[in-house]
Amino acid sequence: MDAEIISVGTEIVLGQIVNTNAAYLANRLTQLDLPATYQTTVDDQSQRLERVITHALARAQLVFVCGGLGPTADDITMPTVAKILGKELRTDEEHWKWIQKTFEQRQIKMEPENIRQAQYPQGGEPLANPVGLALGCWYETKGKVVVVLPGPPAEFKEMVEKSLVPKLQQYFQTGKQITSRTLNFLGRPESQLMDEIEGATNDIPGISITSYVQPTAIQVRLTVRDLPVDKAEEKIDQAQEAILAVEEPFFFGVGDELTLAKVVVEQLKNCEWKLTAAESLTGGMFQSTICSVPGASTVFNGGFVTYAASAKEKLLEIPHNTIEQYGVVSSETAAAMAEGCRRKLNVEVGIGFTGVAGPDVLEGQPAGTVWIGLAIKGRPTKTVQLHLASYVGRQAIRTLSVQYGLQLIYLELKK
Amino acid sequence: MDAEIISVGTEIVLGQIVNTNAAYLANRLTQLDLPATYQTTVDDQSQRLERVITHALARAQLVFVCGGLGPTADDITMPTVAKILGKELRTDEEHWKWIQKTFEQRQIKMEPENIRQAQYPQGGEPLANPVGLALGCWYETKGKVVVVLPGPPAEFKEMVEKSLVPKLQQYFQTGKQITSRTLNFLGRPESQLMDEIEGATNDIPGISITSYVQPTAIQVRLTVRDLPVDKAEEKIDQAQEAILAVEEPFFFGVGDELTLAKVVVEQLKNCEWKLTAAESLTGGMFQSTICSVPGASTVFNGGFVTYAASAKEKLLEIPHNTIEQYGVVSSETAAAMAEGCRRKLNVEVGIGFTGVAGPDVLEGQPAGTVWIGLAIKGRPTKTVQLHLASYVGRQAIRTLSVQYGLQLIYLELKK
Repeated sequence: MDAEIISVGTEIVLGQIVNTNAAYLANRLTQLDLPATYQTTVDDQSQRLERVITHALARAQLVFVCGGLGPTADDITMPTVAKILGKELRTDEEHWKWIQKTFEQRQIKMEPENIRQAQYPQGGEPLANPVGLALGCWYETKGKVVVVLPGPPAEFKEMVEKSLVPKLQQYFQTGKQITSRTLNFLGRPESQLMDEIEGATNDIPGISITSYVQPTAIQVRLTVRDLPVDKAEEKIDQAQEAILAVEEPFFFGVGDELTLAKVVVEQLKNCEWKLTAAESLTGGMFQSTICSVPGASTVFNGGFVTYAASAKEKLLEIPHNTIEQYGVVSSETAAAMAEGCRRKLNVEVGIGFTGVAGPDVLEGQPAGTVWIGLAIKGRPTKTVQLHLASYVGRQAIRTLSVQYGLQLIYLELKK
Repeated sequence: MDAEIISVGTEIVLGQIVNTNAAYLANRLTQLDLPATYQTTVDDQSQRLERVITHALARAQLVFVCGGLGPTADDITMPTVAKILGKELRTDEEHWKWIQKTFEQRQIKMEPENIRQAQYPQGGEPLANPVGLALGCWYETKGKVVVVLPGPPAEFKEMVEKSLVPKLQQYFQTGKQITSRTLNFLGRPESQLMDEIEGATNDIPGISITSYVQPTAIQVRLTVRDLPVDKAEEKIDQAQEAILAVEEPFFFGVGDELTLAKVVVEQLKNCEWKLTAAESLTGGMFQSTICSVPGASTVFNGGFVTYAASAKEKLLEIPHNTIEQYGVVSSETAAAMAEGCRRKLNVEVGIGFTGVAGPDVLEGQPAGTVWIGLAIKGRPTKTVQLHLASYVGRQAIRTLSVQYGLQLIYLELKK
């Protein structure tokens, strides 16, 4: 089954808007095991649209044409599709009456062109639009299916969920079952991680493994097709076990939506501990990341941004000569920051970040040099040094520092 | 001039990510008067990619292939392009040395495959990647141009701006002169802003005005074509004057890369003042935003995250009964936070953020209710209340609070 998504809209090809509809539909199709191999976008120009649709019908069995269903002259999708199919446009009288009634109720003058939003190619099947005026259309021809959907994302999603997905499930009785699981990792280059995972799993047949790099993690997706859920889960468990036997130190949990911040907030909730921080190069980003988790208030009261040395001394009471002697970017200062903020707020966990965000060198150390200190009640204070690539820039260095700080806490609390 | 943007990535066709690169490039091409009529996306599969590129070269003179430049086996873009062009891959020895050095510095073991990121088709011209490992490529063949760009958005944008755009401007001497200027606004709904701007400028012919909504601002771009720069600038000045006569209160400066944080840091530098903050719902995001500006250390020593009431009292010495009497989300508490942090760090400007990020209601107030306090040396403390739409969600409420806080400082310091 080859599917193709065609998006119609001058505003997309001019780069005025981001095409979120294609991603939304592609994701739903993947879940239905009807992956769309191609996505094409073209402007509101009938010859070009005609060429694109014809080309798509030559290589795909299932073609989606999204957008261009408005009432105005440059909304050309429905007539163009009808032309390609060699059909007349037919008016859905019932829907047309409903449109007229809607305008009356809203006391808006209706233009005669609005009848276009009640039309679809003769022989097709109209798709209901729960939140908009324009009908969609499902058309079967020579073993192929053409589907027409509206452009506005709200209407698009509603029609996909309410009208399209049930139709697809009913029409494509593929009987295929897809089971998948996402593992989250941090601290290993993608190429290395995937090579090792391949090595660890290549004796497990029938499982596909894909990776996806996010700024805060590497997500590894394990997918099994055509097996009943329990059998598939067994296979995925087996693969996960084999992978974690090698990558355990870099693994932080399961789930598409999982973040290290969520994991750490959960850990702290479970042991009823509270966290604080003293941030230099991260400038508040760590605490802001913790606060991005709903319910963070149960594990976080507050903390410090100590950007200048003077603030480190003043707010955390770090002895002047500690900084003097070891420098701002040092294991000793990171440790003193972690202990200082923990003492000040009298909580169980304190973390300190100090380093060089760049662009300039600091204390003779290149951008990307970072020290993180972690002070936990009843345990010796730990420090780690990061050597982040300076070329990734100031923001990435700060973001990565925050993630590695979260990972440090995660690993400590796991013990 | 027909251009076409091809995006390569299984994660895009599976709908795992939204394709923002295509929109970004399309927007820049439009500004350069080189609009891309088609956008195509295909997965990491060399036969399909080969077909798509060949098809594009048949209908477009300028073809962009974006993504698939990683070091792993499924990163097939460069070899596929080389095959279509009938060329061998050539290694940029200097860049390859740099990659190896980078891995050494980061103390990470390098895989031999990484050499792929230093390769491009024989006869092409490598495009520098200021923030990543993989080279891009510019290739001219039979009056057509093929450009290869990396997938990660940060690398993509940098290469487009630093390496590609200058190349395009130089190569396509379309004879057309394009002069444009970007005005930045905050605090007005886009539709309203653009209606008013249209009204204010509709008697100025030959100028095109487009808007681009970003999370932190609305950018309005004034563009004049086919006029010598001085004449075009005159026209743009005239339009800007007409626009600011109406929208001055919402305007904060000129430039694509301008942010309110940069503007405020500049203002503070100019009056040699320092800033601090006490953040509740923003949880450190305001200070982190200030620190994202290089050179922020000259105007910012540090500050506080006071998430819980206890931290507000402990770190800022806000009287318990102030919070008791007026509540955490109140003008009085916001003012006390601003004054408290300013006093603690003994600097000229202190700002306080308190409010409801949601999802839950707090003190009977809905998510989106925010109080910002601003204390400036020698001036009466100010507070403002925001009523942000709760449906935009926790993160957007926090981001907008930070931007409105920056705007409040900007307007005060402008006086």
